[in-house]
Amino acid sequence: MSFAELLTQEQVEQVHNASLEILQEVGLKVRYKPARELFAQHGAKTEADSEFIKLPREVVEKYRKMAPPAFTFHARDPKFDKTIPRDSPVIVTASSAPDIIDPVTGKERRAESSDIARIAHLINELPGYDMFSISTLADDAPRDQFTISRLYPALKYCLKPIRVTTTDHKDTLAMMEMAHIVAGGRDAYMEHPFLTHHYCPTVSPLSMDILSTENVMYFAGEGLPVYPTIVPNAGLTSPMSMAGTLAQGNAEYLATVALMQMVKEGTPTIYATLATVADMRSGAYTSGAIECGMLHMAFAQIARFYNVPCGGYIGLTNSKLNDAQAGYETGMSAMGGTVGGMDMFNIGGLIDALKTFDFAKAVIDDEVAQMMKRVKRGISFSNEDLAVDLIKQIGPGGSFIVAKHTINRMKTEAVMTKIADRDARTIWEKKGATDIQARAMKKVREIMTNNTTSLISSEIDEKLRATFPGLVPGELLPIEEHVA
Amino acid sequence: MSFAELLTQEQVEQVHNASLEILQEVGLKVRYKPARELFAQHGAKTEADSEFIKLPREVVEKYRKMAPPAFTFHARDPKFDKTIPRDSPVIVTASSAPDIIDPVTGKERRAESSDIARIAHLINELPGYDMFSISTLADDAPRDQFTISRLYPALKYCLKPIRVTTTDHKDTLAMMEMAHIVAGGRDAYMEHPFLTHHYCPTVSPLSMDILSTENVMYFAGEGLPVYPTIVPNAGLTSPMSMAGTLAQGNAEYLATVALMQMVKEGTPTIYATLATVADMRSGAYTSGAIECGMLHMAFAQIARFYNVPCGGYIGLTNSKLNDAQAGYETGMSAMGGTVGGMDMFNIGGLIDALKTFDFAKAVIDDEVAQMMKRVKRGISFSNEDLAVDLIKQIGPGGSFIVAKHTINRMKTEAVMTKIADRDARTIWEKKGATDIQARAMKKVREIMTNNTTSLISSEIDEKLRATFPGLVPGELLPIEEHVA
Repeated sequence: MSFAELLTQEQVEQVHNASLEILQEVGLKVRYKPARELFAQHGAKTEADSEFIKLPREVVEKYRKMAPPAFTFHARDPKFDKTIPRDSPVIVTASSAPDIIDPVTGKERRAESSDIARIAHLINELPGYDMFSISTLADDAPRDQFTISRLYPALKYCLKPIRVTTTDHKDTLAMMEMAHIVAGGRDAYMEHPFLTHHYCPTVSPLSMDILSTENVMYFAGEGLPVYPTIVPNAGLTSPMSMAGTLAQGNAEYLATVALMQMVKEGTPTIYATLATVADMRSGAYTSGAIECGMLHMAFAQIARFYNVPCGGYIGLTNSKLNDAQAGYETGMSAMGGTVGGMDMFNIGGLIDALKTFDFAKAVIDDEVAQMMKRVKRGISFSNEDLAVDLIKQIGPGGSFIVAKHTINRMKTEAVMTKIADRDARTIWEKKGATDIQARAMKKVREIMTNNTTSLISSEIDEKLRATFPGLVPGELLPIEEHVA
Repeated sequence: MSFAELLTQEQVEQVHNASLEILQEVGLKVRYKPARELFAQHGAKTEADSEFIKLPREVVEKYRKMAPPAFTFHARDPKFDKTIPRDSPVIVTASSAPDIIDPVTGKERRAESSDIARIAHLINELPGYDMFSISTLADDAPRDQFTISRLYPALKYCLKPIRVTTTDHKDTLAMMEMAHIVAGGRDAYMEHPFLTHHYCPTVSPLSMDILSTENVMYFAGEGLPVYPTIVPNAGLTSPMSMAGTLAQGNAEYLATVALMQMVKEGTPTIYATLATVADMRSGAYTSGAIECGMLHMAFAQIARFYNVPCGGYIGLTNSKLNDAQAGYETGMSAMGGTVGGMDMFNIGGLIDALKTFDFAKAVIDDEVAQMMKRVKRGISFSNEDLAVDLIKQIGPGGSFIVAKHTINRMKTEAVMTKIADRDARTIWEKKGATDIQARAMKKVREIMTNNTTSLISSEIDEKLRATFPGLVPGELLPIEEHVA
């Protein structure tokens, strides 16, 4: 596929030069002292007692070029390993929602660790998903177990690559201890590090924070998979123009990737973004707006100019339920990103502008994901596909229905949809006249009763419980039996 | 924008050559005798007492090159005139559904002429639509008034370009008489012909029918705007491979455009398609499937190779209601077509695979249309848009909220959505926790009570009623007062 491009090559270079000018003349505020020191050691201009640094053009150019052209997501089961751009589009859940639509009551409430067990199992079973970025927070997490309360149920029910974030360094070390135990020791883990670490160290405009920056530097130093997401919001934290938001956001990417390369040359990264244009009528965060999709397409083009894999949070919705708005907001940006050349999509399962996880939405997005993959697979063009001889043979007015050519391709040429309704109206009515929300929830309930064995052995489980007293149960409950 | 391309240039030429081979070696069945005779006069190989013709490569090449690179849709009010590709994307309703969701009862029933009055007014008022292709049939049409029963309410409430089809030639002449009266005479009409005529003369595989072919030849001969749509359905009426469906569908386009140029050299046309891949599990017609969107993108690329404007029925859904499926099926293909370079979209208002019109869907698609136009407008790239000076001035950690740059752009940079929900959950709940279906129906009811004056003067109206005794009333009824 030749990707859609919203920018000319000249405009891509304009963005690049604008970003270099911004970093050289305005620079960044860097709140984490070791980051400032590392920047200074590698040619940034710093001043004593100031958090501000300036990055000369040649310094940025030198370090951003060290970022390699691929990024690998390792899975506990290596058959689920994915490398972008080779395996793109890689479909990932969108993550870290504080709330969830309760699958029994249909009401919104805080998410808990037992929800994560269910979601992990769902994502493990749905074929469209390549990776599980832990979808919600866990409101029941014991103090000092913030991240392991999310990671434990995820590991218990999902063998696909897992993406996770942490708070402070202590939290990070607890998470790594859990990962090492599950892997069978630190060495085994380091050989196949099945966690991908994610942070937003650079806060728009042009500021690096303390905790996330510390974590990014730590994982880059350890040689473990880590990448940052750049999150400018036009009108609030970046200019109310897409071009200006690209210039500033790209400066933020460049500063972050440079820091990672200063820690360790050749650290893989992803040009990951979640850029939006604020609805200034109300200040609303419009992750469902088409401008969010357009900015992702443009950032993907800039990433190609830098020869690094790209991705981000796209195909999100501002809707509170699975109505047509949720569908078209997800569908339009997802399709734009797919044909715009994005490699990784944090897309699945969230509604209400990233605030709330919904089980039905996750199942619907799985079907959307399969459509995106079909588009990327493209149109096969062998002589047999072109079928000139067949067309001659069937002739004007004939039918292709019983041709062997048809039978051979009927399950492969098109996506075999599972929850989309394609029935005639009378049959649809006989089946209960359901909407896709109802059919998706039916599938959720089915999945919750199949293959629900824990993916952590009892031996390892005992070790985890001994190491982390008070750890959440992380048990998978069928939805019917659940009492909210 | 540089368009997304699913085919390589070599593959486009492979399709072109395959189509020429098909037309030369297999040819077409042409059931309308005057068409066969015209083909024969211009170099086609025909045989006495046979409906089959063969089109030598050089004949096809000669005539398809006569098609001009633009097509104009005239409107009764010339401010609504549109020319593609210049004004693309031109957004049109999808048309000729037999059924409608009653806006009072919410139940499906046969559509009538009074429904068309309402829909015409709705499309006239909604800013995303550029053209009204009459959305439904009229079940109450008197015998021998099939088309004027649809056209009259359309003309009464819509000044945008109107697309219409007819049955036999008598029906066609009645329609033209109505158009002439409304225009104030034949000469006035011919100066600004506000109807665009549409047919599907070529039935896949490779057959031209009688009535539609006659109509296309008539309008081409009259120099009036007319174009055909090519409708292969992979697995049933074309090969179960997208490449084969492109080869056959393109042959069908080439034969049709050649015929139109044989009638009159330089007749404008549109490379219009509605290609689908059948779901062979049930034989379902999958106008909502992603493969339909992919085929449109590929046909758009072939149309660019021929330098003719393109379009078709895209962004349709198999869903029976405005659920997430309706949203993502419409959104994904619409976005694919937009960044794939389609010029014209028959997209608005239909559900259930083109069988049923729904008022709320038409309002939702209007918002989708505005998003498509925003994508096509692209990213503005002046120095002020790039905003390097502003970024320097605001600096790290600052806010763009009160910048003049922000205030100047807050209503133009992003689509000002009207029915999408972007509220915080608490506010959304206070407002009634509606889905987009409810908000769209609210807007429908509002529009039905505003600017509802007939757009046909009483003098002309009297003349129409005298000319066509028994003509439907074509009155616009507010939805509350309607008794189904």
